[in-house]
Amino acid sequence: MQKTASSSTLGPDGLDIAQSFFKPIQGASPPPPTSRSTKISVVGVGNVGMAIAQTILTQGLADEIALVDVNAEKLRGEMLDLQHAAAFLPRTKISASVDYSSTLASDLVIVTAGARQIPGESRLNLLQRNRALFSKMIPPLAAGSPETIMLIVSNPVDVLTYVAWKLSGFPSNRVIGSGTNLDSSRFRFLIADHLDLNAQDVQAYIIGEHGDSSVALWSSISVGGVPILSFLERQQIAYEKHTLEKIHREVVEGAYEVIRLKGYTSWAIGYSVASLARSILRDQRSIHPVSVLAKGFYGIDGGEPFLSLPAQLGRSGVLGVTNIHLTEDEAKQLQESAKTILEVQSQLGV
Amino acid sequence: MQKTASSSTLGPDGLDIAQSFFKPIQGASPPPPTSRSTKISVVGVGNVGMAIAQTILTQGLADEIALVDVNAEKLRGEMLDLQHAAAFLPRTKISASVDYSSTLASDLVIVTAGARQIPGESRLNLLQRNRALFSKMIPPLAAGSPETIMLIVSNPVDVLTYVAWKLSGFPSNRVIGSGTNLDSSRFRFLIADHLDLNAQDVQAYIIGEHGDSSVALWSSISVGGVPILSFLERQQIAYEKHTLEKIHREVVEGAYEVIRLKGYTSWAIGYSVASLARSILRDQRSIHPVSVLAKGFYGIDGGEPFLSLPAQLGRSGVLGVTNIHLTEDEAKQLQESAKTILEVQSQLGV
Amino acid sequence: MQKTASSSTLGPDGLDIAQSFFKPIQGASPPPPTSRSTKISVVGVGNVGMAIAQTILTQGLADEIALVDVNAEKLRGEMLDLQHAAAFLPRTKISASVDYSSTLASDLVIVTAGARQIPGESRLNLLQRNRALFSKMIPPLAAGSPETIMLIVSNPVDVLTYVAWKLSGFPSNRVIGSGTNLDSSRFRFLIADHLDLNAQDVQAYIIGEHGDSSVALWSSISVGGVPILSFLERQQIAYEKHTLEKIHREVVEGAYEVIRLKGYTSWAIGYSVASLARSILRDQRSIHPVSVLAKGFYGIDGGEPFLSLPAQLGRSGVLGVTNIHLTEDEAKQLQESAKTILEVQSQLGV
Amino acid sequence: MQKTASSSTLGPDGLDIAQSFFKPIQGASPPPPTSRSTKISVVGVGNVGMAIAQTILTQGLADEIALVDVNAEKLRGEMLDLQHAAAFLPRTKISASVDYSSTLASDLVIVTAGARQIPGESRLNLLQRNRALFSKMIPPLAAGSPETIMLIVSNPVDVLTYVAWKLSGFPSNRVIGSGTNLDSSRFRFLIADHLDLNAQDVQAYIIGEHGDSSVALWSSISVGGVPILSFLERQQIAYEKHTLEKIHREVVEGAYEVIRLKGYTSWAIGYSVASLARSILRDQRSIHPVSVLAKGFYGIDGGEPFLSLPAQLGRSGVLGVTNIHLTEDEAKQLQESAKTILEVQSQLGV
Repeated sequence: MQKTASSSTLGPDGLDIAQSFFKPIQGASPPPPTSRSTKISVVGVGNVGMAIAQTILTQGLADEIALVDVNAEKLRGEMLDLQHAAAFLPRTKISASVDYSSTLASDLVIVTAGARQIPGESRLNLLQRNRALFSKMIPPLAAGSPETIMLIVSNPVDVLTYVAWKLSGFPSNRVIGSGTNLDSSRFRFLIADHLDLNAQDVQAYIIGEHGDSSVALWSSISVGGVPILSFLERQQIAYEKHTLEKIHREVVEGAYEVIRLKGYTSWAIGYSVASLARSILRDQRSIHPVSVLAKGFYGIDGGEPFLSLPAQLGRSGVLGVTNIHLTEDEAKQLQESAKTILEVQSQLGV
Repeated sequence: MQKTASSSTLGPDGLDIAQSFFKPIQGASPPPPTSRSTKISVVGVGNVGMAIAQTILTQGLADEIALVDVNAEKLRGEMLDLQHAAAFLPRTKISASVDYSSTLASDLVIVTAGARQIPGESRLNLLQRNRALFSKMIPPLAAGSPETIMLIVSNPVDVLTYVAWKLSGFPSNRVIGSGTNLDSSRFRFLIADHLDLNAQDVQAYIIGEHGDSSVALWSSISVGGVPILSFLERQQIAYEKHTLEKIHREVVEGAYEVIRLKGYTSWAIGYSVASLARSILRDQRSIHPVSVLAKGFYGIDGGEPFLSLPAQLGRSGVLGVTNIHLTEDEAKQLQESAKTILEVQSQLGV
Repeated sequence: MQKTASSSTLGPDGLDIAQSFFKPIQGASPPPPTSRSTKISVVGVGNVGMAIAQTILTQGLADEIALVDVNAEKLRGEMLDLQHAAAFLPRTKISASVDYSSTLASDLVIVTAGARQIPGESRLNLLQRNRALFSKMIPPLAAGSPETIMLIVSNPVDVLTYVAWKLSGFPSNRVIGSGTNLDSSRFRFLIADHLDLNAQDVQAYIIGEHGDSSVALWSSISVGGVPILSFLERQQIAYEKHTLEKIHREVVEGAYEVIRLKGYTSWAIGYSVASLARSILRDQRSIHPVSVLAKGFYGIDGGEPFLSLPAQLGRSGVLGVTNIHLTEDEAKQLQESAKTILEVQSQLGV
Repeated sequence: MQKTASSSTLGPDGLDIAQSFFKPIQGASPPPPTSRSTKISVVGVGNVGMAIAQTILTQGLADEIALVDVNAEKLRGEMLDLQHAAAFLPRTKISASVDYSSTLASDLVIVTAGARQIPGESRLNLLQRNRALFSKMIPPLAAGSPETIMLIVSNPVDVLTYVAWKLSGFPSNRVIGSGTNLDSSRFRFLIADHLDLNAQDVQAYIIGEHGDSSVALWSSISVGGVPILSFLERQQIAYEKHTLEKIHREVVEGAYEVIRLKGYTSWAIGYSVASLARSILRDQRSIHPVSVLAKGFYGIDGGEPFLSLPAQLGRSGVLGVTNIHLTEDEAKQLQESAKTILEVQSQLGV
């Protein structure tokens, strides 16, 4: 696959014009090997992959974006559609390939590819097929970019992040799942919308499994430095446990609702993953609830489950996990989450 | 349609919490009527409309974005998908409505809605249907935002911009078509890619009708201040007229190719329209090839054709048209373009 | 004073060229009166005023920046120095005047001007001189921009914000002092640096008087959702009260240290005020510790003291004050702060 | 010199808290050696150096900024003043040292340090002193960052860029002088202000020596694709050669005027150098008039003069020089410029 739309447009004359247009200065030498640009690869150019790639492009997070997909036509169409905007954006190299050749030496590889559920197919069967897909995909990606961070977005994200970790042979800090980073943004939006303030002033986490068994950390929500639960108590504002659960349910169902209404989710996951890319590549050392190897945290033991915990992210991936205080109930829910995931992992036999 | 996802989540208690969370200071008074935020409405939430809305959101060009579509489910899904990203973005109010109520007092109304061609339908018949659609759409939009700039993206963009102008009753400087702004970016990308430089260093225009009869202004292309045609002459570099025409053809066919490959265009038109929104709302006084009332320019007379000319854009819309030098051949092509458009306009009987 | 450097360069021919370069389209009409650009005025072009103006320019927060100073030469030099960067920035109108004519119809007026302490002068005497300065400055600023928000940066900021409020006749929500917004950033930096994480993940406030009697809210510091004090307790990490006080002292002395080392502070106050400008003009509804009319909050009564509380800021200025929980000790310190300020205010006799 | 303000604040407990706050995940390993962040060093923290450092910080161009100066107090004051803004900015490491230890492994080293003219001192004597200063400064900078790009801002910039090139032992493409990049922005501003349009739509170069003998390329000015000189001819607009020379003189005198009015220049050179840093580090392949080894271009021969030519900049420094068309007169002026510079270089005896 050609990297650009026009390479052959002007035939052999092309090179001549370029060469006579710019003349090298005397004594120039090629760039040193370490002066690399920042490169992000996005594997899978469906709605999610492209929302991620386009948000990364708009925010100027990479000097090069490489796209990969098995559908050569769709892939080329998406590449051209991004390239055509060149005059409106800082220069960013956009390349594409159906194999992994375009991803070589990436700083960050974002995997969004995954099999779709066939009507009537069991969840486990789907997972087996995705595992098979990852078996073909992850080893060449890891071999082509042996020092990259790998960020898994494909669902079910926790188990597939574990699969990618095993298949990559990477240290655990360099394989991360997008996890509940987006669920937490939905949570913060709902609280902020309710209080009519900026969502960035709300600190609130959803952790655990990305999906139905996720855990809302009510005990540690704070708004502008005010812990919400104790605020409600002090104000003697009546609230019912089921009201809080309703908000959590709305978060969990948020993705389903968007899928029911528009057929898929795209924009929010695009922004969510771009925020992770920024924290990693710009070494922000910020805290995000993402899927990491959770063994040994919060009483989780036995096996190697990946699930979302508040993790500090930087240039070497996961820098650590925050020692947040959970209520007994929250810890128990999290441990249940871990068990569910471990069972699925064991069935996969990776 | 509700403006936000959560307004009813906490029932009557909701308001109480918000009110006790923030207390007003003594002697505060409501904001003065003129302290309005910047508001952009996007009519039509298909692939083009949403790429525009999302790019405007990422680039922080508006304090409020209002979405409109006839499909209530799709509309609500897109609104929620943008809202869910609140924690990753500066606070921007996202609203939506199936009627025009959400668009009131917009600073910029971007119209992307349009009928789709029915297999076997004549171009004129399609246009008649789109004219009928605009007849229902433009008057209430104009009435709800009597001081807005209107930016038409629906195709065929030149004729529909004329239709919108007539239906709005607005002065001509406040009705603009996205025109060949994107074609020109494609043109600049192809030249820049060929010379391996930044597309923003290439000045090159496609003007006239957005589509097959567009005019490439070869005589005024310059790269980093170097006029290309005279450079080629001085360097005695052999080139054939058909080579240049091939590049132009590649631009014209660029949209078709992307549509053939991925089914539609979205990202590049999103960036293109966002760049126009920025120039208008931030009063940039920059030059863009966009569709404007062309009567009286470059020998175009008779009737009131809208087609793309290099226009200066700012807070009051079109500030003027650049007096660029055309070769005799270029001027003739442009006048032909105008005639074709005028014929269609006359058939519409607006 | 001329608004731009070059207005007279080409003499009478100038206008001719501009007019023949762009031709207006037919039927164009002037912009509607409400389509105003965002305008910020900065009064005082010393190190603080210019760091603010330049940061606002770099961040693209305004379409027009107006500078005011009594020193016409310095003023013109600063205006030219910003204008000369035009090719590297989005277009922003930079104007300047020794009177208040350039500030008309501002959306935000930032006051940094103030008298300097004469060696041996009492603090009260200095204040009296600054009050006299404000008496000349504030009324014409308020009259020229009757709907503006006024943001006071001059020191002592709390008392001068009160003075500006009285002199302006504005409602209390439209007169704000930069207060402890910067002190709080220093506090968050020191904690973040200590824990080697992103300062934006630290929620921590310094409130009360900007200066020696400011109050550090230890009880509500949280890092990534983890309340620090209870974390230390749970971890049984030994710490001494004097250690925390040492960090607070370092914050209070931060400004003095920078002044001792480089002669003045500029960059951090520039970023601090730009962050306030963004929250106000882009209606961010974010929480900032800034100086507001504090009467009735946290047991503060008697008189109308201005001091810093965690306030929510938006397009109409102060939207409210957060109902944060203070320990008894913190509340008492804050009330002492208020008393000190009230005494000074009463001596001024505004 | 300590890198941060607070390292010793909490004594031995400090580390304990950080370590218990974040726990590493199992199987984590240190980052691979190539996953470096982008690092910029600024040598000299006077008005120019700090305007550059602060603009780079605001624009988020680097993950680490290292400051160097001989004045330890001033240096530490500037470092703290930037660090105190941490809560308002993406996380950026700010370090400082009086020696070159903080600059190790920089991607870009920006040199603004230079001796000041002593009243009565000859220009040559000043240069000799600056050469002596560079002799001490450049070799350790080059040794500590053997793969860096070096960007010289100190004046006289052309000769000092040559000196830095010789002393560094670097290939010519990795030693660049800021040259006439700012002069060209002033030129573009004056033309844009005159025509009331966006300066980014004006293509116009000042080349040659940065200073009195600089050459304005009137023949290649274009505005929105319209070559100005031929436009004026076609419009039969009367203009006098002395009018154009007046604009050029205004550019040349721009710096002197700002210095006369405010004592020094800072903001515009800050933005100018930040734009060069962006083009280099983000591999923008954009064209800038900067000081490069000019031997062999435009009839310049004999010796190795550095002066400003329109050069394409990217991740490996100077990629080439544009083959712009000069009138006979312009070429002659440029060659004169080169001769003047060569004479000074030969007197230095580097």
